[in-house]
Amino acid sequence: CSTASGLGPFKTMEEILKRTVAPLPTYEMRDKSPPPPESSSVEFMHFYKGLEKEEKMDFLDKLSQDFGVDHKGVSELAGKVAETQLRDLATVLQVEDRLRYSLTPRYRQLLSHISRVEGGVKFLVDLRADVIEIISSKASESPHIRDLNGTLKGLLSEWFSVGLLRLERITWQSPCEILQKISQYEAVHPVRNWTDIKRRVGPYRRCYAFTHASMPGEPLVVLHVALTEDISNNIQAIVREFATLDSEEDVNKINSAVFYSISSTQAGLQGVELGNYLIKRVVRKLQGEFPHLSQFSSLSPIPGFCAWLQGLLGPQRKEGRGAGLLTEQEWREVEEATGARDTAADALRRLLAGGEWVRSERLARALEPALMRLCAWYLYGEKRRGYALNPVANFHLQNGATMWRLNWQADTSPRGVAGSCGVMVNYRYFLQETSANSAAYLQTKAVAASDQILGLVSQFQKNSKL
Amino acid sequence: CSTASGLGPFKTMEEILKRTVAPLPTYEMRDKSPPPPESSSVEFMHFYKGLEKEEKMDFLDKLSQDFGVDHKGVSELAGKVAETQLRDLATVLQVEDRLRYSLTPRYRQLLSHISRVEGGVKFLVDLRADVIEIISSKASESPHIRDLNGTLKGLLSEWFSVGLLRLERITWQSPCEILQKISQYEAVHPVRNWTDIKRRVGPYRRCYAFTHASMPGEPLVVLHVALTEDISNNIQAIVREFATLDSEEDVNKINSAVFYSISSTQAGLQGVELGNYLIKRVVRKLQGEFPHLSQFSSLSPIPGFCAWLQGLLGPQRKEGRGAGLLTEQEWREVEEATGARDTAADALRRLLAGGEWVRSERLARALEPALMRLCAWYLYGEKRRGYALNPVANFHLQNGATMWRLNWQADTSPRGVAGSCGVMVNYRYFLQETSANSAAYLQTKAVAASDQILGLVSQFQKNSKL
Amino acid sequence: CSTASGLGPFKTMEEILKRTVAPLPTYEMRDKSPPPPESSSVEFMHFYKGLEKEEKMDFLDKLSQDFGVDHKGVSELAGKVAETQLRDLATVLQVEDRLRYSLTPRYRQLLSHISRVEGGVKFLVDLRADVIEIISSKASESPHIRDLNGTLKGLLSEWFSVGLLRLERITWQSPCEILQKISQYEAVHPVRNWTDIKRRVGPYRRCYAFTHASMPGEPLVVLHVALTEDISNNIQAIVREFATLDSEEDVNKINSAVFYSISSTQAGLQGVELGNYLIKRVVRKLQGEFPHLSQFSSLSPIPGFCAWLQGLLGPQRKEGRGAGLLTEQEWREVEEATGARDTAADALRRLLAGGEWVRSERLARALEPALMRLCAWYLYGEKRRGYALNPVANFHLQNGATMWRLNWQADTSPRGVAGSCGVMVNYRYFLQETSANSAAYLQTKAVAASDQILGLVSQFQKNSKL
Amino acid sequence: CSTASGLGPFKTMEEILKRTVAPLPTYEMRDKSPPPPESSSVEFMHFYKGLEKEEKMDFLDKLSQDFGVDHKGVSELAGKVAETQLRDLATVLQVEDRLRYSLTPRYRQLLSHISRVEGGVKFLVDLRADVIEIISSKASESPHIRDLNGTLKGLLSEWFSVGLLRLERITWQSPCEILQKISQYEAVHPVRNWTDIKRRVGPYRRCYAFTHASMPGEPLVVLHVALTEDISNNIQAIVREFATLDSEEDVNKINSAVFYSISSTQAGLQGVELGNYLIKRVVRKLQGEFPHLSQFSSLSPIPGFCAWLQGLLGPQRKEGRGAGLLTEQEWREVEEATGARDTAADALRRLLAGGEWVRSERLARALEPALMRLCAWYLYGEKRRGYALNPVANFHLQNGATMWRLNWQADTSPRGVAGSCGVMVNYRYFLQETSANSAAYLQTKAVAASDQILGLVSQFQKNSKL
Repeated sequence: CSTASGLGPFKTMEEILKRTVAPLPTYEMRDKSPPPPESSSVEFMHFYKGLEKEEKMDFLDKLSQDFGVDHKGVSELAGKVAETQLRDLATVLQVEDRLRYSLTPRYRQLLSHISRVEGGVKFLVDLRADVIEIISSKASESPHIRDLNGTLKGLLSEWFSVGLLRLERITWQSPCEILQKISQYEAVHPVRNWTDIKRRVGPYRRCYAFTHASMPGEPLVVLHVALTEDISNNIQAIVREFATLDSEEDVNKINSAVFYSISSTQAGLQGVELGNYLIKRVVRKLQGEFPHLSQFSSLSPIPGFCAWLQGLLGPQRKEGRGAGLLTEQEWREVEEATGARDTAADALRRLLAGGEWVRSERLARALEPALMRLCAWYLYGEKRRGYALNPVANFHLQNGATMWRLNWQADTSPRGVAGSCGVMVNYRYFLQETSANSAAYLQTKAVAASDQILGLVSQFQKNSKL
Repeated sequence: CSTASGLGPFKTMEEILKRTVAPLPTYEMRDKSPPPPESSSVEFMHFYKGLEKEEKMDFLDKLSQDFGVDHKGVSELAGKVAETQLRDLATVLQVEDRLRYSLTPRYRQLLSHISRVEGGVKFLVDLRADVIEIISSKASESPHIRDLNGTLKGLLSEWFSVGLLRLERITWQSPCEILQKISQYEAVHPVRNWTDIKRRVGPYRRCYAFTHASMPGEPLVVLHVALTEDISNNIQAIVREFATLDSEEDVNKINSAVFYSISSTQAGLQGVELGNYLIKRVVRKLQGEFPHLSQFSSLSPIPGFCAWLQGLLGPQRKEGRGAGLLTEQEWREVEEATGARDTAADALRRLLAGGEWVRSERLARALEPALMRLCAWYLYGEKRRGYALNPVANFHLQNGATMWRLNWQADTSPRGVAGSCGVMVNYRYFLQETSANSAAYLQTKAVAASDQILGLVSQFQKNSKL
Repeated sequence: CSTASGLGPFKTMEEILKRTVAPLPTYEMRDKSPPPPESSSVEFMHFYKGLEKEEKMDFLDKLSQDFGVDHKGVSELAGKVAETQLRDLATVLQVEDRLRYSLTPRYRQLLSHISRVEGGVKFLVDLRADVIEIISSKASESPHIRDLNGTLKGLLSEWFSVGLLRLERITWQSPCEILQKISQYEAVHPVRNWTDIKRRVGPYRRCYAFTHASMPGEPLVVLHVALTEDISNNIQAIVREFATLDSEEDVNKINSAVFYSISSTQAGLQGVELGNYLIKRVVRKLQGEFPHLSQFSSLSPIPGFCAWLQGLLGPQRKEGRGAGLLTEQEWREVEEATGARDTAADALRRLLAGGEWVRSERLARALEPALMRLCAWYLYGEKRRGYALNPVANFHLQNGATMWRLNWQADTSPRGVAGSCGVMVNYRYFLQETSANSAAYLQTKAVAASDQILGLVSQFQKNSKL
Repeated sequence: CSTASGLGPFKTMEEILKRTVAPLPTYEMRDKSPPPPESSSVEFMHFYKGLEKEEKMDFLDKLSQDFGVDHKGVSELAGKVAETQLRDLATVLQVEDRLRYSLTPRYRQLLSHISRVEGGVKFLVDLRADVIEIISSKASESPHIRDLNGTLKGLLSEWFSVGLLRLERITWQSPCEILQKISQYEAVHPVRNWTDIKRRVGPYRRCYAFTHASMPGEPLVVLHVALTEDISNNIQAIVREFATLDSEEDVNKINSAVFYSISSTQAGLQGVELGNYLIKRVVRKLQGEFPHLSQFSSLSPIPGFCAWLQGLLGPQRKEGRGAGLLTEQEWREVEEATGARDTAADALRRLLAGGEWVRSERLARALEPALMRLCAWYLYGEKRRGYALNPVANFHLQNGATMWRLNWQADTSPRGVAGSCGVMVNYRYFLQETSANSAAYLQTKAVAASDQILGLVSQFQKNSKL
């Protein structure tokens, strides 16, 4: 145990780091230094895995701070750059190359060597997950940790470059190990049993994953596709439909590919584009298999919609009825339907929190126009730093999809009702336009949306005082 | 065709480059820029492949010069580094990160995107082979080409990191495609026919290769191993021995693993360490299979020995007999044996050039002491920038092997006699020492050698006036 | 639909049979007749699959009766055999060969051709399952059906000859399809979920199956093995032990291979020896993997023991207390423990039927000697046509195993208590003796048993008046 | 060594046979006899493999004669058959079944057990090859050997039933072991080197083989197919065409599948239909891959044509010029072209024997009509027991193909010229007709032939006095 010694873990940490993080060779010797012995990498990995969560943070703090860039060296070389501006290009390039080298954190080498050890790449993916957690939980505000994160992301981006990934189709003949993992990772529409998972890899379904040579048996990102006649507007029809489980696919009934679930499995690969590429590769694969397949769309959940709406209806909010979330007529219907004794906003809030309204045809009909309008606005109008607040929307818009259709009562499972009042959305991939859409969204934040969505948004804007 | 237009290829080149090499996003936008359309990468690849050799050089010159680093931007940021030295660390790190980013050549992005396209990684490996040829043939002295080479090497080093390589044992059950390639790549001891290659993957032999997910069916580096009782001193006994072709391996007869051929197949991966790692992985694999296996050694050719010796004996050289290459007694024996009418040096030169001396027992016996002495010196004493001149010696010494034993009449094939007077050498891997040996060689240029080698070297030094 | 025509299925059956069951060629033409078109086989299969259960019996009756052996032809040739007895051997052999050919049922050819069609072998396996059911349910007493059964068994025995079977080790990496099937087929110790099945293919466990080229993805017989220090005496310790689920196997802790479940999956392969061969192959496989493995044993259920015992205690039986099933002392203990108001035999019967006695230490202790004694007798002494009545015992004794050890409270699951009062038995495979044991059992009905078993049996015999 | 003992091999043979060929169990015990120990089978195999060719014959003689059918037993049961004719059917069936069992040769059991041992099936295939050689070389005339052959054929037919065979497509990615074997087995158009074999598995080519679970890595029968626009009339265009070696297949250029080589590799499987089934399976496979593929044909050699023709022209033959093989006009042309000093028949004979005539345009033109006519007759008219004398013709006609087109100068290799004067023939598979053709040929010996063939035959008949 790392804390067994009387001197405490910190002493040990420093010793371990000194021993395992070799100094950066000089620029001249950079190609002439043998790699450190593999045992250094193994020792580092072993030690780190044995640490408690708190200790890990300390360790990463130390690593990033004391074994990072040599600022003095950088500063000196930066000075030289100015001096050489008027010299010949060869000299300029030389100094630039030295400067570039001097900007390498000392720990980068170690990370690189760890990737060569068995299990090393997976270790670094998990290490970065720790780093990301430290940053996002604000446990540490050290700028060095952010540098470490950047270095790790850069390395992982190269190692998980799409050219090195393998597209695998998962079927009922795939190893059980893979299928169990895919069942576990499927958080969007949970897999309950063998039959559920068999359905998702059976006829009229496809399941694809990216895997990587250095992490065998580990799907990195998983995409579930339903092959349908029309673009689906209901998720139960996809994941709870067993009628065709033993049938043969009829190619004439396949006009649409509906991506109904996409899951990234590695927290440590955040920011390393995989999902986007997986969708593209799958589109191409499916076009090869079904040349006449013409419609590509997601059927996506809208996590956060209910929570956002509840927030607006909350007691501490002044808006309530006054904010124009519902029309007067709609508020009245809520009151009638609920026999509300308190304010209509409270009544609505409780109604939505309960979820039973779904089973009342009258209530459902009454709420539909308002919830659809609000949901459209939530997806289209609510932003974070200018981009869509809803993470699923943000993902598909970055990929160049169009916000295409809101579907009422598309997910009537308790989970679906609680999360998004049962509403789901299709992000449609018009293949000719995704490239331009993606660029427009990323650069100008413009959101491509269908007339249905835009119509609902404009209805919202007419009423709302938000 | 690229040159079809009246305006010539140069105009086209510039257009292609402008279109396909996207500008580097600003530092702020670096994570928000969608990847350029795949078609850019494909267009670049297609155009380049269609160029003639000369045109390729022009194209690479342009690419590296006009789409490299923004020197002005670097210079400005370098200036800022000086200013921020006294500010808080967060600011320093920020400026360093900007500076690091600004040192990215504009074309680096394109290369990265090409790697994502099917066949892209292989394209870049071949592109780098072209770059290396331009540099080593001195066809271009542009410092930008060297920068391009450095950038490519950096990227390839990450993509071909050992953790991403797959160790494959090649057997007679491996795909024919692989075995044919391995036959072709085997330049050291050429494969003549099916039986030859079957022998090299049969009992008491192992053949391993690294392959890579992005280049399926393509062995990157190939290692041939013979499993023997004693460390082999003769290559024909390995590659021309068919007696055991259909036998079962007797584990009790396996004490030594002799690496008798290692070939890198991709010129474009020069400087990306693969061979070293392959040997290490194979050693571990064999130890797993044969726990009592204790001796690891190469049986290596000595390319260049005869040419070096012929150079010393050349007519333009003053040394000749006077240089002490042979003892007086030895010169006399040469004269007697050849009935030399001209100088003994000329006689010796012609003798060695012919190669028939091997078949004369008398001549062979007469020449043995001198040639062994000279060969030991050639391997141990002849240097280039302080490291062993002989490339095979340099490779194994870098890996930490010991120059262990010279073997007389170890390769009596015409090729072996012409290249190294039939002498071969064992570089022995004492596993406990390779790490230290490697560091010593790379850092202090110290060569680990056995008593046999050192004895021969000291005999040489006593006589020689070189 | 087969019954669609007004004339009913019988007419159709006859037509179908006439069309699809080609006449046997004459002896002279037997090698010169082209196979009937595949469509005949397909039509037969399709028609049969469409029949209701009742119709199937009629159909098989007709097939076996009207398309069997040509008795007249046989009789004539049999007559000739007598005549040729004094002729030369060549003539004798000729007549014998003709006679042999004439004894071929006409339908045999069709069955043979069906085996060539895709899915044909599986069809015949299932067809034979139907035939067996007809015979064992006594639905038909036709001797022709028995002939059909014999013919099918003969053919299946050749096709499922052990040389044509593939031994597959099932692991967590095996196709999910296989693992699900194995979960379903495991009737002895049911598999409840993913973790259960993962355990049974994880460390210290092995799962092997025979598969066959003509029925891909279909395990025919499955053997589960636990690798343990000592021969296991408790099944829960095997199937509910998850402590070692993620551990690495320590080869030094593996001295025994315990076969804790063997299941045949194809009713239609009854009488085709598979389980016996599977055990032998697995023993050899394990010996290869663990050279020092020395103990091989089953840990087997004793289905039928409780039912047999309840029968003895039944109200209609005169034996009851008088039969000496328990000693007087034991009866008293039962009475005390149960506070029996009726006869002790009834009390005991109810006690065993309930199963709660297992949780009473006192009751369990009281019952142990009697139940062990009775169980030993049930296994060793109760016979059917001279062979062990208990089918599991009969299987292992046929294989040459020794009835080795009864284990008290070895299966305390409700199923185990209800079926065999929680007792399980080890049939031990002493590899040097299995051959002789098997022959002795099959030919003289001698049962090899350990001292423990024989001791219990002799105790039983002393008391019992059975 | 089998002959080491002073008593000679015969004594040993008898001992071995007695020990390894267990007596047939009684009818009652037939399902209750444990299999003999595997060591018996292994001993038998080992002993037999160690015998010299001569000894093998003796051994097989003994085996088949002394361990065959119990003739006395058969005779007795045959007597009973007569007696039971008037009894109930159940009794009749019983006696028949006993009789059937009694007709089993004692060695059949051993053969069956051998098939269960590793390598056993292959051993029996090779054993049957020996038996066939003994019979066809007339080394033994024993009727028992013929019985042994029949028994072996019966067993092998079941084990190599098509449902148990695996169709494998051989590609450049197949194991080298397989490709080398296929190269060796290809006797029709020999494979010279890597490029040759690569061509035959490359674009516009297909190579299929049947393999069997019990003989892994061993192709049993191999079919080479060329995918062409029109039905090929020249073999060099198929096996020596390398232009398309690296091209992609253009599906629009594929209208015909030409079977240009089919080889059985196992002499011991003679009479076990494999080639026929392979062609059928491949046709179905190709139809699946290329739905519009409409023409199926062989391009076949005509082994024996030249030898047959030379026979007719031989000096001992009276026919010579007088037999009407050539027309007077044709004879004259031969005389003129050869400047024959002796008889024209001799001249023609020498001409054909030499083969150089192919390179003379004049000679070739002169000989074409006569050789085509004669060849058509040779294929269509020459018979053995009523079936086509030419074995290739016989094979395809049995399969139901039509003798479709003779092709002049279709194989101009020395081998082709020497064997069939360069002529080749297409046997075309009209899929709708093969079934009827096959039956007609086998039963009535009718040959399906095209107008071209029939026209040539009738020309021949007009002239010939044969």
